[in-house]
Amino acid sequence: MNYHCGKSAKTIFAALLFVALCSISLTSTAGNVILIIGDGMDDHQITIARNYLVGSRGKLTLDKLPLRSTAQVLTVDDANPNRPIYVADSANSATSMASGVATSIGRVGTSAGDDRDLVNIVELAQQQGIKSGIVSTASITDATPSAFYAHVNTRDCENPEMMVQAETYYKTIADCSPDLKSNGGLGSISEQLVDSGLHVALGGGMQHFVQVAEGSGQSVLQLAKKAGYQVVTRATELNNNGSDKLLGLFSPSTMPVMWRGEDDRVAEKPIPSLLNRLHWALGSVTYPEPMDCEDNPEYVGMPSLALMTETALSRLAGGDSGADSFFLMIESASIDKQSHERKACGSIGELQQLDETLDLALAFAKTHPDTLVLVTADHGQAAQLVAERTLFVDIPVPVYSPGHVARINTREGEIMGVNYATNDFFSEEHTGVNVPLLSNDVGQGLVPAMVTQPEIFDIIKSHLLK
Amino acid sequence: MNYHCGKSAKTIFAALLFVALCSISLTSTAGNVILIIGDGMDDHQITIARNYLVGSRGKLTLDKLPLRSTAQVLTVDDANPNRPIYVADSANSATSMASGVATSIGRVGTSAGDDRDLVNIVELAQQQGIKSGIVSTASITDATPSAFYAHVNTRDCENPEMMVQAETYYKTIADCSPDLKSNGGLGSISEQLVDSGLHVALGGGMQHFVQVAEGSGQSVLQLAKKAGYQVVTRATELNNNGSDKLLGLFSPSTMPVMWRGEDDRVAEKPIPSLLNRLHWALGSVTYPEPMDCEDNPEYVGMPSLALMTETALSRLAGGDSGADSFFLMIESASIDKQSHERKACGSIGELQQLDETLDLALAFAKTHPDTLVLVTADHGQAAQLVAERTLFVDIPVPVYSPGHVARINTREGEIMGVNYATNDFFSEEHTGVNVPLLSNDVGQGLVPAMVTQPEIFDIIKSHLLK
Repeated sequence: MNYHCGKSAKTIFAALLFVALCSISLTSTAGNVILIIGDGMDDHQITIARNYLVGSRGKLTLDKLPLRSTAQVLTVDDANPNRPIYVADSANSATSMASGVATSIGRVGTSAGDDRDLVNIVELAQQQGIKSGIVSTASITDATPSAFYAHVNTRDCENPEMMVQAETYYKTIADCSPDLKSNGGLGSISEQLVDSGLHVALGGGMQHFVQVAEGSGQSVLQLAKKAGYQVVTRATELNNNGSDKLLGLFSPSTMPVMWRGEDDRVAEKPIPSLLNRLHWALGSVTYPEPMDCEDNPEYVGMPSLALMTETALSRLAGGDSGADSFFLMIESASIDKQSHERKACGSIGELQQLDETLDLALAFAKTHPDTLVLVTADHGQAAQLVAERTLFVDIPVPVYSPGHVARINTREGEIMGVNYATNDFFSEEHTGVNVPLLSNDVGQGLVPAMVTQPEIFDIIKSHLLK
Repeated sequence: MNYHCGKSAKTIFAALLFVALCSISLTSTAGNVILIIGDGMDDHQITIARNYLVGSRGKLTLDKLPLRSTAQVLTVDDANPNRPIYVADSANSATSMASGVATSIGRVGTSAGDDRDLVNIVELAQQQGIKSGIVSTASITDATPSAFYAHVNTRDCENPEMMVQAETYYKTIADCSPDLKSNGGLGSISEQLVDSGLHVALGGGMQHFVQVAEGSGQSVLQLAKKAGYQVVTRATELNNNGSDKLLGLFSPSTMPVMWRGEDDRVAEKPIPSLLNRLHWALGSVTYPEPMDCEDNPEYVGMPSLALMTETALSRLAGGDSGADSFFLMIESASIDKQSHERKACGSIGELQQLDETLDLALAFAKTHPDTLVLVTADHGQAAQLVAERTLFVDIPVPVYSPGHVARINTREGEIMGVNYATNDFFSEEHTGVNVPLLSNDVGQGLVPAMVTQPEIFDIIKSHLLK
């Protein structure tokens, strides 16, 4: 290669220096940040959704984002925070992004071992008068959203009645006694939401707001109203024109998802013949029948993630001047939750919700040019995109997954295999794979090609805060 | 945001225009391309290797590459090439990268359906007098390397004796009769290598060169010597100083890998107690014991992938002037092959080989600044990074994978779980996930944040050819 430009090197250098100095001055001013988290949205989930929604040669909106990075998820052992753990849950991974500190499984905004409250991005924003919003298709008190506003030692402590020796799932017990207000703590997650100062909080989880708040004769919901929140419970009540604080609770717990498998089918185990049970090379196997995805009747009346986001953006960016800085975290929660239950159609529909929401965020960023849009996941999930029966179809023995398989009819008319085989329990496992991190052009210079998950906090902070 | 630089916009614009014009002139000259393919190297494989080799907070060399993209793998149905297939094999995915055309499973350099020979990047380079090299830890006639120089309808036709109704694996039959020279074809893959004009070819696969070549009284190896190849079979014979064409065949088939599991152990099935076999909520389970990775005694005497690459680079870039353009494809083949066999340590060691080779390639690119270094994978693989037993450890029922599990002791002193559960056959399945594509700075402007796999061919071509 010949560098023909050598003669004018001085001119170029001067120009580049000038541009560089400008850039420094530009990045030091505050901007908006929209952080979109697909819970459990690893590359398998994205490829599965892409193949289904737009075909294998198509591109989702998130595929078109100009900057791609990957995030190494970090988790530590609670007994010895110097020891790494290789697979995360949503609580510790969301805490990484919200507070920049790797913590242990189940913790929300608190440090591993010594249980310190970790300052989060919403609190830092508030110190500078910057508004924040949280939108989720889970309970608004679930692990991912709560890591952005609350501090408890266990994610299960979502309401005042869950604080002391509460049975959570399958005989496991959570205890947040140290976080009781009477013990000098901040109370349950729903109580902390009321105190958080969040400008907008939209999602599911009404069941966590009906209890009597600790040391008060009133329900958490009543306290929310007292704290200035307009409370809405139906999609039709969402109103972009208001400027008050807004709390939307559209379902008792996780919001119903948009799609489900045909006749509510989930992934099923291939069924080997009797002969094949006697010897692996004999007999035959019956694979699950292919299935369509269909509308989930329970979704009727729910606001879409995009509609909730539109409302949040309007409330946050409205202000008096229409030019306030803000931080907005949006979670598409059920990519993960449906994958736990081996429901491929549910995860795909939820990822479509995320992609539509991203469309909206990018349109907003076009008219508000200093808006950093980040899309990422908190951790990997069990679902694997596999051959729709087996790659070894030519071999005259039955070859099949030992796990659960869904064979999904895609929109382009083919069958796609999704394998769930991390356990045979009623809930599949997370995985420890690094997860995608994508950004719009505003992330240029801010988002390197690889980060650790806590560094996402640094990226948000450097763009959001003055 | 305030744009303080507005006053000097004209000056900046002029400078940027000048820089842009320089760039156009720079990218329009030919350069070197080093394409490194980790066979089966999806993000699970990379995260598993990272955690083992450098710890969860560490970075591999490939993690430090400045440009990250992802490649959607495309496969089509042989009977109807308009129909997509969602999971690839190495033959069709390497053909995508070598020739820019999506084809069907098992095909090497030929089109789906009508079996046309597809022009590959090595042939295009040769037309311009640009040398090429192929390095692999597989047989040099295996699917990935051969897609860069050969054209056959089935990957199994690696030597003259495999051309007609040959049994390949587990009673499956391959037939390449149409590719016989006597039928107007180009012959078997090893014969085509001899005719390819490749300047360097280093790997395993001696067993495919000892047969008598079709229509000749001589072995393929004898023909190679006749065609001007210096043939070497030992690492100690690798000589960087020569300028002749070089064929190195260091093992009969796939080269032995660097590492194996302790006492040659592979992933094993968790063993449920009798009670647990009767009911999933009863009894207990015995997980496989953790294992160290250890040196594979069979690897002794093998040249490393880095040593083969060093030789290839020296031969290709040496020339008379020391500044020839070249194309070099390097495959770390056994990430995939060891994963098929549920050998996590083998895959990790092989990924380390790739990473060391990348170090070498980047060092070369430093002294040869127009060298585009790309790192990618051909398709996903079965291995999943999972909790080392289960995430549901607090639940008083046994929870375990229905597949095979390896619990690997990492260098940082923790246990990492790797799950293989796509089937119970003796070879695990590929997956259909999109795969990483990474580049050094030379790829700036050439490598968008997402591509389809055939577009990798376009990237290589645009940089390599005048």
